[in-house]
Amino acid sequence: MASQSIKVAGMKKSDQKKTAPEGFRSFCPIASALDIVGDKWTLLVIRDLFLGKHRYGEFEASPEAIPTNILAERLKRLEAGGLVVKEYYQDNPPRAEYYLTRCGADLGPVLRAMREWGEKHIDGTHVPEKFKELPAPEIRE
Amino acid sequence: MASQSIKVAGMKKSDQKKTAPEGFRSFCPIASALDIVGDKWTLLVIRDLFLGKHRYGEFEASPEAIPTNILAERLKRLEAGGLVVKEYYQDNPPRAEYYLTRCGADLGPVLRAMREWGEKHIDGTHVPEKFKELPAPEIRE
Repeated sequence: MASQSIKVAGMKKSDQKKTAPEGFRSFCPIASALDIVGDKWTLLVIRDLFLGKHRYGEFEASPEAIPTNILAERLKRLEAGGLVVKEYYQDNPPRAEYYLTRCGADLGPVLRAMREWGEKHIDGTHVPEKFKELPAPEIRE
Repeated sequence: MASQSIKVAGMKKSDQKKTAPEGFRSFCPIASALDIVGDKWTLLVIRDLFLGKHRYGEFEASPEAIPTNILAERLKRLEAGGLVVKEYYQDNPPRAEYYLTRCGADLGPVLRAMREWGEKHIDGTHVPEKFKELPAPEIRE
């Protein structure tokens, strides 16, 4: 993302107390975060980016087996929201890699909190030894 | 929840490394957490419970205006998962209140992390002064 925060068109300062940002359900930052990452797949793509995956085939190879059409839609949405950038590493045929921006990487604490909750409360979940600490992701600005 | 973690029927210890818990997409605790709270609404109901809301009408009055059928389904799912308990405060007609269990209340760090991300990255979001600190919820075991 060029600027520091996800743009809200047409918001006047005086509206902020009562009105939801345009395209969001309410002024609540939790609700607004969920408007972007509130589904079963988006945070798994973010997780994979933290784990060093950058290409389509790598995301698809994750154990949750994200359907291709959902992966394509989520990456497009994450790119539009400024959480992810797309970089071409080959022209013909065009092949791209995806990287987290600072905005996307700032979801690290959300992933960590979810991991802790899952490990504590859902029997049979576990984190591979090498990912006991969520890796620092490669970031593009 | 009676016990400490969400039950996974039929899991043998030796299966845990390779197999997903029954009813979950993978062994990853983040993916498994998202199997329970990965949608636009569930964490808003949890948020409301933290804010001291316990009745249907209170959840419905939140600014995101959760549709009644979604609210009913989510409360049922949260109860089945042991994140929430239902208590009748009136018999005729029957009227219930909902309370977080320890398992549900352990989602506090997820809410806090999402709030911080939303406040930092989505223009126009804000937290009312009295909720600057996420309140300690009333818990039922």
